[in-house]
Amino acid sequence: MSEPCLIGIDWGTSSLRAYLLGQDASLLDSRAQPWGIQYTPDRDFARAYRLLLEDWLAQWPGLPAIASGMIGSRQGWCEVPYVDCPADASALAAAMVCLETGVGRLHLVPGVRQLGSRPNVLRGEETQVFGAIALKPELADDALLLLPGTHSKWVEVQYGRLQAFSTFMTGELFAVLRDHSILGRPALEAGAISDADTFIRGVQTARDSGSRGIADCLFGVRSLVLCNELQPNQSLEYLSGLLIGEELRSALGGTASASVPVLLGDPSLCARYRLAMESFDVQTAKPIKNPGTAGLWQIAEAAGLVKAKGVQGV
Amino acid sequence: MSEPCLIGIDWGTSSLRAYLLGQDASLLDSRAQPWGIQYTPDRDFARAYRLLLEDWLAQWPGLPAIASGMIGSRQGWCEVPYVDCPADASALAAAMVCLETGVGRLHLVPGVRQLGSRPNVLRGEETQVFGAIALKPELADDALLLLPGTHSKWVEVQYGRLQAFSTFMTGELFAVLRDHSILGRPALEAGAISDADTFIRGVQTARDSGSRGIADCLFGVRSLVLCNELQPNQSLEYLSGLLIGEELRSALGGTASASVPVLLGDPSLCARYRLAMESFDVQTAKPIKNPGTAGLWQIAEAAGLVKAKGVQGV
Repeated sequence: MSEPCLIGIDWGTSSLRAYLLGQDASLLDSRAQPWGIQYTPDRDFARAYRLLLEDWLAQWPGLPAIASGMIGSRQGWCEVPYVDCPADASALAAAMVCLETGVGRLHLVPGVRQLGSRPNVLRGEETQVFGAIALKPELADDALLLLPGTHSKWVEVQYGRLQAFSTFMTGELFAVLRDHSILGRPALEAGAISDADTFIRGVQTARDSGSRGIADCLFGVRSLVLCNELQPNQSLEYLSGLLIGEELRSALGGTASASVPVLLGDPSLCARYRLAMESFDVQTAKPIKNPGTAGLWQIAEAAGLVKAKGVQGV
Repeated sequence: MSEPCLIGIDWGTSSLRAYLLGQDASLLDSRAQPWGIQYTPDRDFARAYRLLLEDWLAQWPGLPAIASGMIGSRQGWCEVPYVDCPADASALAAAMVCLETGVGRLHLVPGVRQLGSRPNVLRGEETQVFGAIALKPELADDALLLLPGTHSKWVEVQYGRLQAFSTFMTGELFAVLRDHSILGRPALEAGAISDADTFIRGVQTARDSGSRGIADCLFGVRSLVLCNELQPNQSLEYLSGLLIGEELRSALGGTASASVPVLLGDPSLCARYRLAMESFDVQTAKPIKNPGTAGLWQIAEAAGLVKAKGVQGV
C-alpha cells in the first residue's frame, strides 16, 4: 500500500463515511457507520470520530483530515459559515474551520450560499462539484451539473467556480407523499412494483402539463387508480415519474436547453433521471460516480494540506 | 317550528353533521359528532347513525334521510358507484343507493367521475355544487366554482350540469410538508404567526415563477430562513402562500381568465384564496357559505323525496 496522505470524510445527515487516500486521491481504504448527524450516538461527534478513525490516526499520526457535509451545519459538530457563490476550491479551502478533535485536527469544509434574488444554500454538494471538475477538467469552463437526491441540486459551473444553483425537493416530496399522504395508500395495500413504463408515463404527464405544471396532476396518482387506469402497485412509479418529470420540466424550461446537465451521484438514481430525460429529448453523458473523494482531495490541496499532483515526493 | 321534511347529512372523512330541514330547505335543527368515516367508533356506521338521529327518527317516523360524502366511498358504509360527468341533480338522484339502516332508510348520494384524458373523482363536493346553483340560479348556465380544502376542486358548471373538474392537493400538501418535511422545522422551533404580508409574498413568488412553477421555490421556505430573509415564525405563511399561489398560477393559466371562479365553503379558507387572487388581478364575488344543505335538498327533490318549491302543502 502506498503512503496515506489524507483522511477524507463525508459526514452527512444519515451516514458517516471515511476514506484513506494516497497520492492523487487514490483510495487505499474506507469505512462507514450509520452515524450521520441525526443518528450520532448521544450526539457525541468527537467520540464517533475517534471510534471510527483511531487506528488510522494511531498508525499515521499527523495525517491531515478533512470533512464535508452536514457535520458543518448548525445541527452538526461545529457550524462552518457559508461561502458566498461564485466560489472556487480555494475560497472553500480558505473558509474551512479547523477543529481540535482530541485525536488531531479536522478541517471542516463550508457550504455555499447564494444571495440575491434567489437565496439558496447547499452543504456537501460543493465537494461533489469540485470532485467532478477534478475528474473531468473539461467541465470547469462551463457546465451544468445535476446532483439528484433528497434535495436535488442543479449547479452551474463557470471558470472553475460554483457560479449559481437551484434546489428541487424531489426526493423529499416523494418520501413524504408516499409515507404521509393519500397518494401512498394504494401501494400501502397492494405493494409496489418496479415498472419503467409507468414511471415514463408519469414523466410524460409532467412534461405535457406545459406551463400549468403538475399541481392538478398529482391527485391523479389516486384518481387513476379509482378509474382503473393505473394499478395500485404501479402508483408509486407514476408518482416518482410525475415528480422527477416536474423537476425536469421546470429546470429545462420546456424548450431544448443549451446546457445538457451532467449527472453526479448515486448510480441508480442517476439512471432514473437519464431515463426521464429521454422523454425531454435530452441525452446525457455517463454519470460521474462518487466524485466526493476527488472533491475532498481537491479542497485539501487548495488548502495546502496535501501536495499538488506531480509535485509530491519531490 | 315548521314541519320537518328531510334529514340531510354531510358525512365526510373527519366529521358527521346532520341537519333537520323544513320546507324549502329551511334549517330547523342541526347536530354534529367527530364521527367521520376515519373516526367512527368501531367502524359501526349503523350505530353512529342511530345514536346521532334516533330521537328525530322517533319523533318523525318515516322522515326521508339523505347523506353525501365519503360515507358512500369504498371505505364508508356502502360503496355508491360514481356517476360520470357531465351530470345534473337528476342523474345524481337516480344513482343514489338506498340503505336499510335498522331505523329507516337512508339515501346515499353518489360521487362524480370524470373519464377521458383527465380522469378524476370527487365525492361530497357534488352536493356543494348543486347547493350553490340552488342558492344562486344564475350560476347554472356557465360558472367556474372553486371549493378550497384538503383537495381543492375547480368545477365547471354548464346548463345546470357539473361539466368537468380538476383537483389540487393544496391543503394536504401544506399539511404533510408542515408536519413531515424539513420545511416545517423552522416553525416547529419558533412557532407560527399569522402574517398576511408574508402569505402574499409566497403567493407572488409562485405567480412570478411563470411557466417554471414552484418546484425550485419550495426549498426557499428553508433557505430564506437560513439567509435571514424570512423569520422562522413566518415560514408557514410563506409556504401556504407558495402552495395556494401555485394552484392559482396553474389554474388561472397566467393570463387573465375568462371565468372568474366563485368560491364555496369554509369562510376563513375562502378569505385566504380571495386575498391570494388579488395578486392575480382576479376579483371574486362574496363566497357562498355552507351550500351543503341546499344541495342535499336539491338532490332529494330531484329524487321525489321532498316536494318541489311552491308545490308542497298542496
